[in-house]
Amino acid sequence: MSEQPLFRRLKDYTYPQLDVLAEEMRDMITTVVSTNTGHLASNLGTVELTIALYRVFDPDKDVIIWDTGHQAYAHKILTGRYSSFPTIRKRGGLSGFLKTSESTYDHFGAGHVGTALAAAMGIEESDRILRTDRNIVVVIGDGAMTSGMALEALNQLKDLGSKIKIIANDNGMSIGKNVGSLSSSLADLRLNPFYRDLKGDLKSTLESMRLGRLEQLLSKLKSGLKATILGGNVFEAMGLNYIGPVKGHDIQEMETIFSGVKEIHEPFFVHVVTKKGKGLEYAESNPTRFHSVSKIDPESGEKVFSSEEISYSDVFGGVLSELSSRDPSIVAITAAMPDGTGLNSFMNKFPSRLYDLGITEQLCTTFAAGMVIAGSKPVFAVYSTFLQRAFDQLIHDVALQNLPVLFAVDRAGIVGQDGATHNGIFDIAFLSMIPGMSLLAPSSIQELADMLYTLLAKGELRKPTAIRYPRETEITSLEDVLSSMKETDIWKWEKVLRGSGIALLATGSMVSRSYEVALKNGFALYNCRSIKPLDADSLEKIFTEYDHVVCIEEGIMRGGFGSSIMLEAARLGYNGKINVIAIDDCFSVHGTRDEILTELGLDNLGIDNAVSRLRGEKNASDYGIR
Amino acid sequence: MSEQPLFRRLKDYTYPQLDVLAEEMRDMITTVVSTNTGHLASNLGTVELTIALYRVFDPDKDVIIWDTGHQAYAHKILTGRYSSFPTIRKRGGLSGFLKTSESTYDHFGAGHVGTALAAAMGIEESDRILRTDRNIVVVIGDGAMTSGMALEALNQLKDLGSKIKIIANDNGMSIGKNVGSLSSSLADLRLNPFYRDLKGDLKSTLESMRLGRLEQLLSKLKSGLKATILGGNVFEAMGLNYIGPVKGHDIQEMETIFSGVKEIHEPFFVHVVTKKGKGLEYAESNPTRFHSVSKIDPESGEKVFSSEEISYSDVFGGVLSELSSRDPSIVAITAAMPDGTGLNSFMNKFPSRLYDLGITEQLCTTFAAGMVIAGSKPVFAVYSTFLQRAFDQLIHDVALQNLPVLFAVDRAGIVGQDGATHNGIFDIAFLSMIPGMSLLAPSSIQELADMLYTLLAKGELRKPTAIRYPRETEITSLEDVLSSMKETDIWKWEKVLRGSGIALLATGSMVSRSYEVALKNGFALYNCRSIKPLDADSLEKIFTEYDHVVCIEEGIMRGGFGSSIMLEAARLGYNGKINVIAIDDCFSVHGTRDEILTELGLDNLGIDNAVSRLRGEKNASDYGIR
Repeated sequence: MSEQPLFRRLKDYTYPQLDVLAEEMRDMITTVVSTNTGHLASNLGTVELTIALYRVFDPDKDVIIWDTGHQAYAHKILTGRYSSFPTIRKRGGLSGFLKTSESTYDHFGAGHVGTALAAAMGIEESDRILRTDRNIVVVIGDGAMTSGMALEALNQLKDLGSKIKIIANDNGMSIGKNVGSLSSSLADLRLNPFYRDLKGDLKSTLESMRLGRLEQLLSKLKSGLKATILGGNVFEAMGLNYIGPVKGHDIQEMETIFSGVKEIHEPFFVHVVTKKGKGLEYAESNPTRFHSVSKIDPESGEKVFSSEEISYSDVFGGVLSELSSRDPSIVAITAAMPDGTGLNSFMNKFPSRLYDLGITEQLCTTFAAGMVIAGSKPVFAVYSTFLQRAFDQLIHDVALQNLPVLFAVDRAGIVGQDGATHNGIFDIAFLSMIPGMSLLAPSSIQELADMLYTLLAKGELRKPTAIRYPRETEITSLEDVLSSMKETDIWKWEKVLRGSGIALLATGSMVSRSYEVALKNGFALYNCRSIKPLDADSLEKIFTEYDHVVCIEEGIMRGGFGSSIMLEAARLGYNGKINVIAIDDCFSVHGTRDEILTELGLDNLGIDNAVSRLRGEKNASDYGIR
Repeated sequence: MSEQPLFRRLKDYTYPQLDVLAEEMRDMITTVVSTNTGHLASNLGTVELTIALYRVFDPDKDVIIWDTGHQAYAHKILTGRYSSFPTIRKRGGLSGFLKTSESTYDHFGAGHVGTALAAAMGIEESDRILRTDRNIVVVIGDGAMTSGMALEALNQLKDLGSKIKIIANDNGMSIGKNVGSLSSSLADLRLNPFYRDLKGDLKSTLESMRLGRLEQLLSKLKSGLKATILGGNVFEAMGLNYIGPVKGHDIQEMETIFSGVKEIHEPFFVHVVTKKGKGLEYAESNPTRFHSVSKIDPESGEKVFSSEEISYSDVFGGVLSELSSRDPSIVAITAAMPDGTGLNSFMNKFPSRLYDLGITEQLCTTFAAGMVIAGSKPVFAVYSTFLQRAFDQLIHDVALQNLPVLFAVDRAGIVGQDGATHNGIFDIAFLSMIPGMSLLAPSSIQELADMLYTLLAKGELRKPTAIRYPRETEITSLEDVLSSMKETDIWKWEKVLRGSGIALLATGSMVSRSYEVALKNGFALYNCRSIKPLDADSLEKIFTEYDHVVCIEEGIMRGGFGSSIMLEAARLGYNGKINVIAIDDCFSVHGTRDEILTELGLDNLGIDNAVSRLRGEKNASDYGIR
């Protein structure tokens, strides 16, 4: 990537030329995202913001950190990745988020929300100690400010004496809707005439660039804030100089403001209002739908997909709605992901029983614990990778008190194009280690429905329980799934194929992928749908009948399902051989889900090869399966 | 515990009688804590608050949740645990925190900060759905409000339309000092004459109990807030009606205020100012020192301890200070625990390089990642149990970017009297599963010093690394440790004892406890100081020389050190026997560290018994070690 970064030439452009550039960039983003999938609306909204920012701050010298990275496509295009942009989210191409290994202009890798401010504060303090002089800017969305981590950082900023410039990209919504008091404050401020008038003063002052007057104005602004009918500004209370609202598609206005705050050695909160999906009619009018898109027709915005496919997420949502109509104590909780987790239908049917608490996995988990204490049946639907944020709450608030919260762990395993930050490869390990936690993994969509039915309608939800399921679809319909739904002995493993020699113990997504190799070789195959507790009866039989067991799971090896089997085997004095096919101590790259599974040896062929190798060389030294 | 709870009789007391009761309770707390150890200062501060609260709200009907639980001793004494109070923190006695299994008046178990509000919001919503009518009150300290989880909850309160009454116990400090903007807001409010005057009005109004006027006053209070020279009240912005500051040792005043807010169906933030250590001169004048105490003389407050003992924490702090005087890029980070983690000396020597960021483990971790990005060498000293809060940041911000942050994981393993909430039994498992993370466990205090020296002064800190060490002391001195400090091959295991038949692979605290059994039986003993990566050379030799390996660790079994050994053995095609002595899928109770280790079979005798059993019954079915 020896491409000369475009941002270096930005200063040579006139404003009309910049507007043309912005349109070109927007076209490029739309065209590429339509094909490659990715975050469309958020990235269309930040084109002018990025241009203005890089005309004022110098990416070669200053530190500019984009929170989350789902709004940083323009940043990528301007910082040396114009020609490689069409490869975004493809195997071997650019990442859809930020990666320090991809570009020196990505100062801090991201993917999960709310990390940028904390990292920037660390950089600022390190600069202070090492006497490095540069500007530090954080661009953060309004949704990210609901996350505990961003709030922790905001709350400590004043005490550290930070001078960070926070550019808040307020598009009036986090991923789903706008939640939380900080977001409301932004909305209030957006509409407040006091700020609008003041901004006029500020703008003319900044344009004249007389810093003495600027400081006067700043103090006017501060005292003005105290008097506003809004009851004060929460950002001021946090020690930040608030400026806004600023028009987020007016390059000249933003540039003026950014230039001003750059000169003042104080922390600023610059409130920029952008339009999510800017310039693309269908994305502007339906930004949630186009927050992150599958393949779409770039003209109409219509999804390009095979008919009759339905995802685990959709079935989860459909089944939960069905069960909830029979049981008024069931409630659903989401951390700003009602769409992604399939809860849309539930939300429409039971709006008062759907809790979208913002990007707050910690709060969601302990909130669910509280609901159980008071008698409800909460189901927290969350992506595996984001549940990592609630690890302590799972232990301390849920498991230690043995509260039967149900966790619907979506996107378990490889997610594909979102890459390493979004893969859900740790949940088997981090959930299995928690005393008293149960963990299930359906091998099919119907089995997911049966599990939900058995847990929620048939009284099997008696302790903290998680169900993990992959980002996959099947060719079936919700109606068929619902009509076939039945009570199942969910804690018992299912013997899928009889066989001899080797028993394949597969979980979740790996059951179907192990089927052919088992059939072909005459191995036994078990659907180990209960990862914890292990099915002791089945396991005893397996250990009696087979002298070689191969465990197959879509997750990290250390602490995973296979390692649990090994511990149990030692306890039972099993003398046979046990191998594990799993992900061994690596973060994987991005690509399609299928590409990555193949790369990890977790597809039919990979499993076949691994098992053949293990079988042929039972005592050899290369039992290592990556 | 059929004791009639004292709170039911509180209404029969006159105010002078209540003052006497408060003094008696304070004496009881001082006497018991002096002997049993525990949180002294915080519990002395909340006696009158608890009395006032339980005269107004009804613990038999209402939900009152104490955040963290370190200020809830008076609550315990008043809710049926008067006679058992002297057993607090002893094996088989009352817990030092809150436990739903101990009393129905403990509505939500606690130990870690910042969970109460989230749980209360869950209870409130469940009550709404199930049409339960009761008051919900949360008592929370000012320090807890720095934690991301509490901030997430506070930020969502308004959107949920909550009516929760938050009683903020402001003793002007979290555990260490007062950090964060919310705390500063409290301090400002404490001193603001506007609030003081208004409170006078409020009090007389509440006394006359004319609700119409009360509501008038409330609106006056609200509009007053807008006009205050303080620039608005951050709690108002969060949608809470602020009332305060209220005198936290004046039962009558608190009662008046609590009665008022109880009648109004709106959320309130009642700011109560208490004095930590109230009534005990030495605790009042030095509340940090007496936040949580070891055995002390109840008259003088002097610590009762054996001379020449020094803890891992003290040595960590001492060594870090020494190394930092040679290397200006080393900085220390703490989440409100400078005392507990031994950083006091560092703080005195390098005040500008000690970052106390409040109770914000998430922020601390990503802040450290930022510091590395910018060239510093951050060391985050944190209790094992609290590092659980930063699990996602460890993965997403540190490991994924391969940043060499050093985590000094204190209180790893069993902490003793603080009990299950504070035990650090998960760190081996949750750190080992993270790709690229290194994990060390010194078997002695000198080895801890050598590791720190080798990592920080000899360039061995090249990737994310954690050192876990127990809550233990040794008879040595910091001077001796520093003068013996040397570079060590920290990634190599140390063969402590040669032997035959069985190889004991022990980590950290378990090395010394395995010594006798190895010596007595002629087993080999290894100090496996590097838990990750495993020492491949040593392991290969061990697998060649021994047909039975027993792994011993102070941590949870699933995903622990032993399970890593098993996975590696499978990879290498080892045909021998491997057993694991660890903590098997349980939360343990409280007691002294020695009592609990004995109960878990993790002392000399327990290890001896387990190994004998494993040795004698190599193929039997009860290999189960708890």
